[in-house]
Amino acid sequence: MSVYGDNIKLTVFGESHGEAIGAALYGVPAGFTIDMDKVLLQMARRAPGKDKTATPRLEKDFPKVISGVLNGKTTGAPIAFVIENTNTKSKDYKGLLDNPRPAHSDYTAFVKYGGNNDIRGGGHFSGRLTAPIVFAGAVLRQILETKGIKIAAHIGSIADVNDESFNPVDINDELIEKLSGLSFPLINKSAEDKMRSAVESARLDGDSVGGTIECVIKGMPVGIGGPLFDGIEGAIAKAVFGIPAVKGIEFGSGFSGSLSRGSENNDAFEYKDGNVVTKTNNCGGILGGISDGMPIIFKAAIKPTPSISKQQETVNLKTGENSTLKVHGRHDPCIVPRAVPVVEAAAAIAVFDLLQGEF
Amino acid sequence: MSVYGDNIKLTVFGESHGEAIGAALYGVPAGFTIDMDKVLLQMARRAPGKDKTATPRLEKDFPKVISGVLNGKTTGAPIAFVIENTNTKSKDYKGLLDNPRPAHSDYTAFVKYGGNNDIRGGGHFSGRLTAPIVFAGAVLRQILETKGIKIAAHIGSIADVNDESFNPVDINDELIEKLSGLSFPLINKSAEDKMRSAVESARLDGDSVGGTIECVIKGMPVGIGGPLFDGIEGAIAKAVFGIPAVKGIEFGSGFSGSLSRGSENNDAFEYKDGNVVTKTNNCGGILGGISDGMPIIFKAAIKPTPSISKQQETVNLKTGENSTLKVHGRHDPCIVPRAVPVVEAAAAIAVFDLLQGEF
Amino acid sequence: MSVYGDNIKLTVFGESHGEAIGAALYGVPAGFTIDMDKVLLQMARRAPGKDKTATPRLEKDFPKVISGVLNGKTTGAPIAFVIENTNTKSKDYKGLLDNPRPAHSDYTAFVKYGGNNDIRGGGHFSGRLTAPIVFAGAVLRQILETKGIKIAAHIGSIADVNDESFNPVDINDELIEKLSGLSFPLINKSAEDKMRSAVESARLDGDSVGGTIECVIKGMPVGIGGPLFDGIEGAIAKAVFGIPAVKGIEFGSGFSGSLSRGSENNDAFEYKDGNVVTKTNNCGGILGGISDGMPIIFKAAIKPTPSISKQQETVNLKTGENSTLKVHGRHDPCIVPRAVPVVEAAAAIAVFDLLQGEF
Amino acid sequence: MSVYGDNIKLTVFGESHGEAIGAALYGVPAGFTIDMDKVLLQMARRAPGKDKTATPRLEKDFPKVISGVLNGKTTGAPIAFVIENTNTKSKDYKGLLDNPRPAHSDYTAFVKYGGNNDIRGGGHFSGRLTAPIVFAGAVLRQILETKGIKIAAHIGSIADVNDESFNPVDINDELIEKLSGLSFPLINKSAEDKMRSAVESARLDGDSVGGTIECVIKGMPVGIGGPLFDGIEGAIAKAVFGIPAVKGIEFGSGFSGSLSRGSENNDAFEYKDGNVVTKTNNCGGILGGISDGMPIIFKAAIKPTPSISKQQETVNLKTGENSTLKVHGRHDPCIVPRAVPVVEAAAAIAVFDLLQGEF
Repeated sequence: MSVYGDNIKLTVFGESHGEAIGAALYGVPAGFTIDMDKVLLQMARRAPGKDKTATPRLEKDFPKVISGVLNGKTTGAPIAFVIENTNTKSKDYKGLLDNPRPAHSDYTAFVKYGGNNDIRGGGHFSGRLTAPIVFAGAVLRQILETKGIKIAAHIGSIADVNDESFNPVDINDELIEKLSGLSFPLINKSAEDKMRSAVESARLDGDSVGGTIECVIKGMPVGIGGPLFDGIEGAIAKAVFGIPAVKGIEFGSGFSGSLSRGSENNDAFEYKDGNVVTKTNNCGGILGGISDGMPIIFKAAIKPTPSISKQQETVNLKTGENSTLKVHGRHDPCIVPRAVPVVEAAAAIAVFDLLQGEF
Repeated sequence: MSVYGDNIKLTVFGESHGEAIGAALYGVPAGFTIDMDKVLLQMARRAPGKDKTATPRLEKDFPKVISGVLNGKTTGAPIAFVIENTNTKSKDYKGLLDNPRPAHSDYTAFVKYGGNNDIRGGGHFSGRLTAPIVFAGAVLRQILETKGIKIAAHIGSIADVNDESFNPVDINDELIEKLSGLSFPLINKSAEDKMRSAVESARLDGDSVGGTIECVIKGMPVGIGGPLFDGIEGAIAKAVFGIPAVKGIEFGSGFSGSLSRGSENNDAFEYKDGNVVTKTNNCGGILGGISDGMPIIFKAAIKPTPSISKQQETVNLKTGENSTLKVHGRHDPCIVPRAVPVVEAAAAIAVFDLLQGEF
Repeated sequence: MSVYGDNIKLTVFGESHGEAIGAALYGVPAGFTIDMDKVLLQMARRAPGKDKTATPRLEKDFPKVISGVLNGKTTGAPIAFVIENTNTKSKDYKGLLDNPRPAHSDYTAFVKYGGNNDIRGGGHFSGRLTAPIVFAGAVLRQILETKGIKIAAHIGSIADVNDESFNPVDINDELIEKLSGLSFPLINKSAEDKMRSAVESARLDGDSVGGTIECVIKGMPVGIGGPLFDGIEGAIAKAVFGIPAVKGIEFGSGFSGSLSRGSENNDAFEYKDGNVVTKTNNCGGILGGISDGMPIIFKAAIKPTPSISKQQETVNLKTGENSTLKVHGRHDPCIVPRAVPVVEAAAAIAVFDLLQGEF
Repeated sequence: MSVYGDNIKLTVFGESHGEAIGAALYGVPAGFTIDMDKVLLQMARRAPGKDKTATPRLEKDFPKVISGVLNGKTTGAPIAFVIENTNTKSKDYKGLLDNPRPAHSDYTAFVKYGGNNDIRGGGHFSGRLTAPIVFAGAVLRQILETKGIKIAAHIGSIADVNDESFNPVDINDELIEKLSGLSFPLINKSAEDKMRSAVESARLDGDSVGGTIECVIKGMPVGIGGPLFDGIEGAIAKAVFGIPAVKGIEFGSGFSGSLSRGSENNDAFEYKDGNVVTKTNNCGGILGGISDGMPIIFKAAIKPTPSISKQQETVNLKTGENSTLKVHGRHDPCIVPRAVPVVEAAAAIAVFDLLQGEF
């Protein structure tokens, strides 16, 4: 239902080429002064058109707040905002209703909605719908920061080029601060050229590449979350899989941890400065679904952008025959960099929801 | 809250060494004849003590249905059942409250519940709480089967030994039927010896191993699920992360798909026997959060069993000093085989919930 | 959270004197052609300024649909719409933050939101927030009508002047049709003059009057709803108490039924034209929380408009002293007529949600 | 779904003549010492067989806690308990499946569940299912008391005999204490004889009577609840309508307030001992859906017991002809006294849920 949250509610609406997109956010405490510049910075990180890894469209994703903020402060009413759809070139999408694009929602949405869905720009399934998620996450993140909880992510990999991983037991605030302001966020900047080459090479081939994003939530108090279906993993996964193109998620050592032995994967406890910490962090900061006070770390897999200009095989739903298509229009050969602030936002939303549920 | 579902509700309760564990399941249609033998078969697959990969405890996990079934048929009232805790050896757990076991919920639950949680056998965090999940899943699976939806899983890997993967575009019913009756379910039986060796080797070392489980849902109609937070991936992930020890999940090509190009990862459509199918199935049967009619395929990462008899480093919460412990008691050196029916059950629960939500 | 629904979601946002109010409605089936004139008719019935029973403000509550409708048809995406706040005279509300108006939310909202709430026009607590509810209800009502379910309400009473009640076992479609188009809906038009006199008399006294609204839902299939917390009464009550000024609800014979004996209050069953009906309808069409196929009938109590121009006693929250105030501005001496379409809308929303939950 | 709560979850299960009834309660804080005697006292107040107003059945509604409590203290795990069904005389219910009892759920449940529901004793629709609600409410009430929140109710009326009402602005703790221990709770004991006579007279006629219950929640902090669908009225109504036989609810002056003018119904604010209070309490302690610190007061209408031994008209669903029936078995001529602790419990559950949702 495009609605997230047990204790807060984020309700996203809009279609890519309709009047506007937007969201309403319920459950934000009153009296918080939103730093709107910080919000806009996060939205700018997600916006397209910044460089060659992204589409050359120039969106003006300027959110208009229509409720819940007065003189810069939250009023306690739902925070609602809309972003008008201005720079839309709908003619590019003619014929797509009949010839569904592979790896897009065209076919499944066609069946689900009986052909009534707005196909232009992907409609409600467009990556553009992540803009409201970033807005909401950017607001909640600021509140989390007042509680000492900080969130950052970086490009874990693009194609087969990897960035360094977070040091799971020692992530300093400067790194977090730095990453959360970058458009192409990397721990080790030396990977950037290779990553950009991989993207450019795909673009020249009319193709696309995918990658991974690693995200950290630092400063989470011990004891948040719960057993079974109340666990942090499920809550974050539900939010992160809400981002189009995410096809996998792992916490801590995740899939590679499944190759190790218990004696390696178990994180030994020890006292450090009077606090209980773990010497390693293979559990990604979560034990029994509950935060253990160490950084929460997860990695998300992003599939290669489905829109490619190479010819692809598809079907013609009108004629009932096999068919081919080339996707025209402006598309990102790699959405991984732009997806970084979206993953951070999803993490902020999930974590805020969990914290609101605490007595 | 140990509660799952938007359209149905599964509410799990109980602690490992308390009076009983159990669950109540809301939203099951009336008039369905439950094949209780099939339910018990699934519970037996999860039960410990079958062979050396599992703990030698002999649980008699016999569920007593107390509501919702009359003369073998569902009445429309919630289906509630309890499983008494009989074979408990609580003395093994003395002292754990002070010395939390690494990679267990001992420490996080201690903080969350102020030391009031029932530590014996892991309490509400025990793997034993998956028995009610298997019961519920086994009931829902039978109803799904009447709608042509079949679910099966197999051991994807144990340590570094891999089974074959499902052929993602062609999974025959015999394979599904076969797998869902096995205690050590493999597509290619030749991996069994190596896997058992890896487990036995870890056991002899007082250690443990992890692995992966691959699960398929076949026969899902096109058009189930929805955009953003309503997607199938999030719904299944929420259910599967409800299983203790799961630390990762990926759909279709997942993490490895993030290494590929769009032209490789996109699944071409074609007509086959009048139906739209895809030639490959890298999307795992899900596009835009919605089923595309192909098998839904996902893989879950299972961490190595945290209980090992090797000495481990921990802290003493009473004295505030670093400490060591050896976990005594009866534990599985590998829970992957027993977790297979639990993953199937979680998939059944998630899919049933999604289907109930359709108009 | 200003959010309603288990199977659909209606999320209302906005503040009376902010940028705009609006709502998003999730779960509406795709492909339905909305008759927007009918929607606007319902909104006009709720709008103020029609006659002396209502405030002379001229609101232009013209809803702008920004998502979910393409070429007049629903697309399956959330239906979102906004109504701009244009005709606001915010200076009337100066000083209210310090001197809370009796019977308003001023004081409770002040405490809840720490004085950060937007007090102008009542902010998010304004009766104006019922406009989005009417919009949503008007859309859902059209869909319900295609399933043979019709909803209407009338002014049950204003002050001590009563309209006739519905004949609970025989409500013809013409009556329903007629009532749902009226601004001052009565079964027996002869009550109108007396009602208007009661309102006018209160207005001249600088005072206000309350009343009741009786609502019927005809054509509900047998078997909708459920036991205990899943009952129709609770679902409708939750929606109707969402309307500011509603302070009571009763189904069927309700409070007066509590004075009768079982032999009088029990509704005898009989066959009529091959269908099971009841000879009376004291249960209001609901037995065991489930519809019995007879009209669902309920009555809501509306308190007298809290805004009156008479001097009232209050407190000054700044000085901590007792105080007095006169509420200036434009206010309805009786909101009952305008609340009728809101009650109908709440009923439509509740019933639609219940029906969506059925397998 | 027989499930209540946004922030806690109460999930009720069982059928009157099945193995057992029970419930699970999620979200109770750990470390609370339950006074089980107090819980049993509340259950005894609800239990039948105490005197002539109630059925002579002797139920032994002894709840067996199977989860969530260790050595008398809550562990943080869900509190689950079962009550075995021992004293059932199922032969009394033969033939009811064909001849639905008027004013019962027999007919609606038959249609909803396709005749598969357990008709014996009313199955899941039985008043017996209120026993788990009382248990849960009795636990939560104890926790509320530690926060200074006290709940009590009394018989407002039976047939046309009224008790005094609560003084809405001054309810002393002794009265609350006294009422919550009585089986036939009245503010003014002088009404008891007349009430008992009304019940006895109905009983001798083979008939039944209804009544009302007035309930108070004292000590609620200011600022709990919220606007629109988040209001206290809706939350309490949802819980109270979960009790079979409740057909109406009103808060504060409710329906009679709709007859008054604003100048009478508005509650003037004043300072008293430094606190903001209201001079009257026609709003029932709730303004804008939010608590104002005054006692929350509501009244529920209870229909006359539907089971009467007089001959009644019904239909024979098997033959398709009109029919008659006399309800045999043991039934209460008036359930109002036994419903008092159930209403208190529902209030406790609703209020606890609201409080858990606060930041």
